[in-house]
Amino acid sequence: MTQRSVLVTGATGFIGQQVLPLLSAKGFDVHGVSRQAVNSGESVTWHELSMFDRHGTDDLLRQLRPTHLLHLAWITVDDYYSNAENVRWLEHSLALFSAFAESGGSRFVGAGTSAEYDLRESADLTEYGSPLAPNGLYGASKKALYEVTSRYAEQISLGHAWARIFFCYGPGEAAARPIPTLLRRLYRGERVAFQEGRSLRDYVHVGDVASALATLVDTDANGAFNVGSGTAISLRDFVSRLAAAAAAGSVDFGAAPTPSYEPARVVANVTRLTQLGWSPRHSLDDGIRRTVEWWCERFAAGDPSG
Amino acid sequence: MTQRSVLVTGATGFIGQQVLPLLSAKGFDVHGVSRQAVNSGESVTWHELSMFDRHGTDDLLRQLRPTHLLHLAWITVDDYYSNAENVRWLEHSLALFSAFAESGGSRFVGAGTSAEYDLRESADLTEYGSPLAPNGLYGASKKALYEVTSRYAEQISLGHAWARIFFCYGPGEAAARPIPTLLRRLYRGERVAFQEGRSLRDYVHVGDVASALATLVDTDANGAFNVGSGTAISLRDFVSRLAAAAAAGSVDFGAAPTPSYEPARVVANVTRLTQLGWSPRHSLDDGIRRTVEWWCERFAAGDPSG
Repeated sequence: MTQRSVLVTGATGFIGQQVLPLLSAKGFDVHGVSRQAVNSGESVTWHELSMFDRHGTDDLLRQLRPTHLLHLAWITVDDYYSNAENVRWLEHSLALFSAFAESGGSRFVGAGTSAEYDLRESADLTEYGSPLAPNGLYGASKKALYEVTSRYAEQISLGHAWARIFFCYGPGEAAARPIPTLLRRLYRGERVAFQEGRSLRDYVHVGDVASALATLVDTDANGAFNVGSGTAISLRDFVSRLAAAAAAGSVDFGAAPTPSYEPARVVANVTRLTQLGWSPRHSLDDGIRRTVEWWCERFAAGDPSG
Repeated sequence: MTQRSVLVTGATGFIGQQVLPLLSAKGFDVHGVSRQAVNSGESVTWHELSMFDRHGTDDLLRQLRPTHLLHLAWITVDDYYSNAENVRWLEHSLALFSAFAESGGSRFVGAGTSAEYDLRESADLTEYGSPLAPNGLYGASKKALYEVTSRYAEQISLGHAWARIFFCYGPGEAAARPIPTLLRRLYRGERVAFQEGRSLRDYVHVGDVASALATLVDTDANGAFNVGSGTAISLRDFVSRLAAAAAAGSVDFGAAPTPSYEPARVVANVTRLTQLGWSPRHSLDDGIRRTVEWWCERFAAGDPSG
């Protein structure tokens, strides 16, 4: 049997760090890319590389020749929705894909987003029924990467799956993101002004996103796959549960304005993914409890990441 | 009055060489990019640069700081429709656009294609009414460049026009392309096997494409603009006229198979462009006569480009 190897970009990130052990467990030789040096352990070999280093990327692909590529790395700044750096990430992601194709790779899995869809649609979003019409540069850049790489992959018979990830939450998110920021304020006992929060979202635990990605790497099924819980919860209900689990501070719904761009309902139809044998394992109550515990331990320890 | 300067990529190409004098006539300080050294004349300053040289591109934009960018350069190989190099051109075009935006540029004009549309539609194609659904990697890459750069431009209030060019013909096309190849065979007196040729196309003279692009550079109107003649002609009729003008050889319609992908009708609605004051100046009869004359002179002289 040929050894299967997978190169993971964004491997030290929120989702990346959870998917690595799942890929090892599936028998892959796992390689992670990181901007900073990481000591390679028994299950992951690390490669220090900036995704913006075009020659380094080409060299790594040529030398390693991984059979699979899971591309999670993307812009991580706070204003990621409209930041011009999305275009740079698209550019370098195309270069990475081309290098992977030219090195003889056999399967690519990329991280897309619910923001690729036309979110004025209020029905459950389906991969091949709901129109794509991103509102921001983030969604536009991800959609462009999907459309071009899937077409290219089809031409050269390279496997290609595209995970449209909905609202991912859980332990390990970047500290500056909205959920950790909210939890930090609650932990300090603040009364947090929040929008009305009537819009509906599909929150999916990072552990379930990781198992979805591992499933997509380890299958022959191609195409776009929504990665969500398949269930709707209002922003208000979700935040109330976070506040209840934090058992500190409070949230004042309606005290902050609703953003000008606030789709009423963003919920995934996850039929395509469940047909591959995947299902979400984390209940919302358990997921929220563990997320809040994880952050509160770090806040208590004065952890700079918390 | 501030001096307006325009950097033109693909400036030595089929369309590029015709647009340069039009931009000079409009008062632009015109700069051309070429892979090979070209002597700068009184109206054009040339810069020797490969579009794939990322650092060179960044340096040129930083030093020159053109107010306008007309980006015509793209893959020129024969199998451009599906060649993987389209992805490299998309990648480097994104880098060029980012460098232009970062250098403080004020207006971008890009070369798109009728192949961005869903060509299963048989009505006249309109920029904001007809769906985009490219069939090949060429159209997919151009569409991605349009969608991402237009979104980015909108965010930073950079002017952005996108020319969807239909079937461009005329003197100066690359010798390996279908029309020059056909004319060369006719010139030699061959009987050329051709498809049935019942499908309808919108052929537009390269001089009219050049004037359309100069119009789009020299306006404040943003968005996508079809660049075509607005009139339908069958492939059979167009080729018959070429053969009649060549007055040599003959064409055997139906002796070659129709390609598997052969849209029945690809015709532009050019209302948006004509609203800017542009109109096609070259009649089909005159355009064909001059094109055939241009090629026959080169064939007679044994010109290697002919």
